[in-house]
Formats: sequence, structure tokens, C-alpha cells
Amino acid sequence: GYGRTGVVYQENSGNDNDTTVVSRLRMNIDASTSTDQGLEFGARFRLQWDQGDDNTDSNPGLLYVTGSGLTVEVGNVNTAIDSSSLIYATELSYMDNSVGFSGVLPAFYAYAAKDYGGDNNRMGVAAEYVFDTLTVRGSYITADQVNDLPVGTEEEFGLLAEYVWNDRLELSGAATWNGEGIEDNDIFFIGARYAVMDNARIGLNYVSSEDWMKGDTIAIYGDYTLADGRTNIEAYVANNDQDYFGKETDNAFGVGVNYDLGGARLGGSIQRDYDENVRADMGLRFDF
Amino acid sequence: GYGRTGVVYQENSGNDNDTTVVSRLRMNIDASTSTDQGLEFGARFRLQWDQGDDNTDSNPGLLYVTGSGLTVEVGNVNTAIDSSSLIYATELSYMDNSVGFSGVLPAFYAYAAKDYGGDNNRMGVAAEYVFDTLTVRGSYITADQVNDLPVGTEEEFGLLAEYVWNDRLELSGAATWNGEGIEDNDIFFIGARYAVMDNARIGLNYVSSEDWMKGDTIAIYGDYTLADGRTNIEAYVANNDQDYFGKETDNAFGVGVNYDLGGARLGGSIQRDYDENVRADMGLRFDF
Amino acid sequence: GYGRTGVVYQENSGNDNDTTVVSRLRMNIDASTSTDQGLEFGARFRLQWDQGDDNTDSNPGLLYVTGSGLTVEVGNVNTAIDSSSLIYATELSYMDNSVGFSGVLPAFYAYAAKDYGGDNNRMGVAAEYVFDTLTVRGSYITADQVNDLPVGTEEEFGLLAEYVWNDRLELSGAATWNGEGIEDNDIFFIGARYAVMDNARIGLNYVSSEDWMKGDTIAIYGDYTLADGRTNIEAYVANNDQDYFGKETDNAFGVGVNYDLGGARLGGSIQRDYDENVRADMGLRFDF
Repeated sequence: GYGRTGVVYQENSGNDNDTTVVSRLRMNIDASTSTDQGLEFGARFRLQWDQGDDNTDSNPGLLYVTGSGLTVEVGNVNTAIDSSSLIYATELSYMDNSVGFSGVLPAFYAYAAKDYGGDNNRMGVAAEYVFDTLTVRGSYITADQVNDLPVGTEEEFGLLAEYVWNDRLELSGAATWNGEGIEDNDIFFIGARYAVMDNARIGLNYVSSEDWMKGDTIAIYGDYTLADGRTNIEAYVANNDQDYFGKETDNAFGVGVNYDLGGARLGGSIQRDYDENVRADMGLRFDF
Repeated sequence: GYGRTGVVYQENSGNDNDTTVVSRLRMNIDASTSTDQGLEFGARFRLQWDQGDDNTDSNPGLLYVTGSGLTVEVGNVNTAIDSSSLIYATELSYMDNSVGFSGVLPAFYAYAAKDYGGDNNRMGVAAEYVFDTLTVRGSYITADQVNDLPVGTEEEFGLLAEYVWNDRLELSGAATWNGEGIEDNDIFFIGARYAVMDNARIGLNYVSSEDWMKGDTIAIYGDYTLADGRTNIEAYVANNDQDYFGKETDNAFGVGVNYDLGGARLGGSIQRDYDENVRADMGLRFDF
Repeated sequence: GYGRTGVVYQENSGNDNDTTVVSRLRMNIDASTSTDQGLEFGARFRLQWDQGDDNTDSNPGLLYVTGSGLTVEVGNVNTAIDSSSLIYATELSYMDNSVGFSGVLPAFYAYAAKDYGGDNNRMGVAAEYVFDTLTVRGSYITADQVNDLPVGTEEEFGLLAEYVWNDRLELSGAATWNGEGIEDNDIFFIGARYAVMDNARIGLNYVSSEDWMKGDTIAIYGDYTLADGRTNIEAYVANNDQDYFGKETDNAFGVGVNYDLGGARLGGSIQRDYDENVRADMGLRFDF
């Protein structure tokens, strides 16, 4: 898991205070066992507290079995699109936040860090196959496996394919049908990132959505590590084509910097979203 | 703890779908310390998620001290009858389920895997003494130690005695007065299992109850391990003498098979209950 | 963490039963990582079940970084006054309870063992500096960092200074402004304890409060270890100057004894509070 804490300024936050301390503490509780045949059976609970939570519950359980490159998950599974290694690649700073791209992603199911949000009978199955640098994952989630789903609700299906070429080029594509169980909320994502130098990468992400509030978004992003080997500068520019009430611009952008302490990192960023509100943060994150 | 997942078919389940995925993830969080005198003081929390739970809480705590064969428990204790090594011996397959015997047991308190069900002031004490292959356990539970119990509610008392003879014959007897705190809900259980061969056992269970919905139940059961040493076939036939509305027969039965993967097991079973509904399951369980 | 359980008698408890079993189980879940620079980043969750709780949640997270004697905490922090090594020094027996002193302390924030009591947006920061035997801690808590605080509510500030002289004399002083966020609930504490012999200590605690229900309290206390090195006798006398309805006396006192089992301890005490009610307990505690 990890811990992170810092200060966030959000212009026009709607709260009395636009500047708040935002922290998170996440601990995974893992257990596993191996069989004679070399299969590994495992399970995970997660305890995650976010700023604004009164206390902390564990989430629904994830069970998996893995062997020979194939992993099958049941329960609170990692969905295909959420497992993309690039869909969150525009995120900046200690909180890994991107108002311009991952902040406007259409709704889809993901590993539930806290609870099922009242969907007690939610059930998921996922499978991943890794062959060398090729990864393929499929996932299936139903909001209620016991009763018929209400009108407008469908089962979510997802597919992900990822490939790394020559340690230089990363490709990731994902398709989700009925994202978060919403009928016809189909989502397509494609991303590519190329290491133009050993210490510099540039990437392009595109997501299309049937959700009129979210629309299609394209982002170009990159990061550059300074000669000290510790300071990483990152930035993105994103364009979103929707026209909801309150939207001021089709362009959002952000720039951030992370300093590696060797086990922890300091990060700061400044971004501007599609409402032309500025968001700035500074804080630290450590993994354990 | 352990994890288990599989598919269950329940005829006339009353839900829209008679076939569902049923999973559980259980992790025990144990801590203990030893004193100079050789006493061991310990405690346990349990995190248990079952299919149908929105998230996971820890349960009420169990504290114990053990030394020289005597264990004393306080708090969320293991009750006498629930600790019987034979009362659940008719259970089949990956879920350890038996619609014909343990499915119709009268109500009694057990170690609470999740919460006290609103009985915040519930309090329990239990003691167990082990002498060679003889085990004796007594337990006491009150639903409310702070206030007078409401009319119809009493404290539950339980006794258990178990003996293993020559590694061949297992005997288990338990008596519970005011099971689950319900006045006059007295329960008597006796079970015996004999290893007729090294790889075959046969057993007989009997439980009597004052609960007119549950009545008296007798079951004969056995299991046989094939020559591969991994495949275990198990079966039971049970007879229940009550006559509640909807009951179609006095006889229930089931047959199951488990295949040991060496650290995990695959299991399947088919059973028929007293309403003449069929229940079938197939899945896997792994312990860690 | 630790476990403790025992029997408590409380005269005029207001419940049907004046005698109850009182248990607690506390487990801390810690994680930390160190950086190249020698900084330690860490975090803590706590699972705590008390008698009377239906189940157990984890509490809000605490994050900290420590290095070169300085520790900075964010989130669910340890407040200054609550971290005093002497403010709880009058407590007796297995439950560490003192009806005459810590039982009448005015309200202040402390590390939340379970939840924020509905103050979801509560946020705290604390810093501690240790230099040899001098410890200084400051803490800041706001009940709501997102919205303006309601009338009568303010941010709590706290300061603590502690010093140990020659392994013999312990001094501890704390000041808290707006304790528990209550405007003008200012609290001042001073305590001193001196080891008059290697096996005997005597101390004096004083706390002043603006809270008319709590008032000013002074306590003299001491403990003495018998020649067996295991039996510790402890006692206190306290005087409280307030005059609320139901108060019968200005003097409270108690005497207790603890027997060290080497990893666990047995404790018993008898106390009389300001309502002239007697409280007696006997039980055990073990740390792990």
C-alpha cells in the first residue's frame, strides 16, 4: 500500500475553503498459497482511508488463481480498462491527478477500494493472460447476479490489450461495453507512449465515450528526468469535445514535478480544467 | 483463513436467478504473547467477506489464555456445540454445505464472524480442557450483560465432550440450553464416526431440538478416498421428523466429491432437501 | 496492541447490572518505509473493539515522517495533551482507569481509536521534537477543514513539553486552547513525578479547565514495587473544586495493585468518585 498527504488548492471548489489538506492511507492485506502443480491461489482485502472519511472499512474480497501466465479473478476484480497502464499516464504530482484526462473519463467499474456502493449482489470475473510483453485482460461485472437488472442497466464487459515493444514503445487499448452497468455507455480507449530518450517519454491518449457529459478526449503528455536522476518533470495538454453547461474551454493542461527521495517522493503540480478553474497541489507520497 | 468461490444452483431459490457465484474470503488477524510461566495470552479479529456483502467489517474481539491443556476465552467466544468436530461432518464440496443436517440445525450462538447482530452488550465466556484425546468445553453467552434480558430470552449454556479412540473412532456429544438465548430452545447432539478402513469412514449424527420448525434429525454419512490419494467421495442421508408447511419429504440426501490439489481443493456436490428442491455446486477452496 | 478483560463493579451504574465484564482488543496495523536520506515514512491503522461494540471498524489513518528527532504527523494525529506521559499516571489496575483524575479531564481531541464521530472533514497536524530527555510536541486539529466552523467552534491548538532529569524526576506540562474545538475550552496541565527510591515513585498532577462541569483537579499519587519485583501497589487522592448537581464530595481516591506475569499482568483496584460511588475492578491485560 501507500500513504500520501499534501495541500490542494481548487479554484471555485464550492466549499468555504478552496485549500485543504488531502491525504490517503491504503493498506492491502494479501494472503496466498501454492499448490503442488505450481498454481498460486490468493486473496486480497484493502483498507483505504481518504481525507473526508469518518473511519475505515475493508472492501469486498478479491480471489484469484494464477499459473503459467494466466490469472483468473473472482469477486471484487480488476476490470480491463481500469488495468490499463496508460489510461492514468497523464496524472501528475503526489496525488496522481489529471483534471484534463482521467478526471473526465466516462464511468466504468473498477476494483472497489471501499465498498460496492450498495450493490451488495455485484459479482465480477476477470481473466488476464501475459505472454512475454503482451498482456490481454477481459472482465465481466454484473451489478446484481441474484435479481434481474433494472431497465437501463446491463452487464459490463471489458477487454484490454497491451504490448511493449523493445522497452521503448508502450501500447494500450481497451474497450468497455455498458460501462458501470449503464446501458450503451460504451467506451473505447487507445494510448501510446514512446521513450524518445532514456530519460524522456512522450505519449498520446484517446478515449471516446457515449456519455454526453464526458465526450471524447485526446491528450498529449510527456515526462523528462533531469540529470540528477531524481527530478522528473511531467506535463500534458488535453482536448475534450463536449459542450456541457459551465464548460469554458475545450483545452485543459497541467504541469508537475516529482522529486524522488528513494522510497518516497515529493510532488507538485498546477493544472487548469475545462471550466478554466485552476488546481494546484504539493505533497508527498511513500510506498510500503 | 481461506478463500472459496464457485457456482451454486438452488432450485426454487425465490430469486430471479437460481444459479449464482458464491464466494467467501476469510482472514483471521491473530496476536499472542507468552509469559514466563508458560501461559499464552492471545486475541483474534476476523475479516470475513461473503458474496452479498457490500463491504467488510472486522468482528468483535476474542481474547484467550491457554496453558497446560486449559484454554479460557472471553468476548466473542467459540461455543460448545459449534466447536463439535462432527456436527458439520455431513457437509459436502467446496462450500461445506449440508442442506439435510447442518442446514436444519436449531439456532445456537457461535463465534460471530461479522458482528453481534445488534446485541452490542452480548458477552461470552468459554473454557476448554484437552487431556490426551479427550476434549471438554463449556460455554456461556448472554445477549445483554448490562440490562435485564427481555421475556422469552435466557442465557445460553453449552457443554461439549469429545473423545478419539485409537485414531479410529471419534465421538462427540453436545448439549445446549436456551440456544441463541431463546428460552427452552434446548438442543442435544451426539455424533460418532468410525474409520472402517484407512481410506473410508462412516458416521452417524443425531440432533434433537425443541424448535418445532427444526425437530429431530438423524444422518448417516461417510467418505471414501480413492487410490490416487487425492479424490475424496462423500455422501449422507438424513431424516427429519418435523412437518412444517412446505415440507415434502422426511428424507434429504447428498453426494459430493473433492479433489485435493495440495493446498487447494476442487469440490462439487448435488443434494436434495426436505422441500424436494435440488441444490448443486461446484467450486474451489484454498486455505492460507 | 493489547488485550484486556476483567470484571468491573460500578455502584449506581444506572444499568440493571452494576457488575459487568469489560474487555478491549486493540491491534495496530503499521507500515513504514525508509528513504536514502534516513527519513522514515510511516502510517497506522487501528482496529479496536471495546465491550459494547457490535463489530469493529478501522479508524481514520495516521501518516508520519520522522528523522533526526523530529516527527511530523498528518491526519488522525496524536495531540499534545493526550501524549503527556503523566496525565494518565494516576490510573489503576488492568483497565488503567482513574475516576478521580483522568475521569474528570475536560474535553480535548486525541488520536481517534475508532472514528471521527461524524466529523468527516476533521484534519490534524502535529509535530514532535525529541532532544535527549526533552520532548516538545505541538498539535493542531480542525473539526472541518472544508467548511467554515459553526459558531462556538474553533480550531484546537495544543502544546506539550516534557523533561526527564537524571532518570529520577519526570516533568510534563501541556496547554490546550479550544479543547475538542469548543471555543474558550482552554486547558492547562502540569505534572511531576519523582522516584524517591528505585522501587517507589510519588507524583503530583494539576489540571485547570474552563469547563464548569470539570473544573480544576489536583491529584497526588504514587506507586511502590514489592521486593518480589512483580507486585506493584499504586494509589492516588484527588481534589476537584467544581460543584455540579449530584457531586457529593470534593475528594476522590483509589488504590490498586498489579502483578506482573512477565508479558501479562493481573490488576485490581477500588476507587471512590466525586458522587461517592464505589468502583472496583479486577482483570488482566497482555501486550503484543
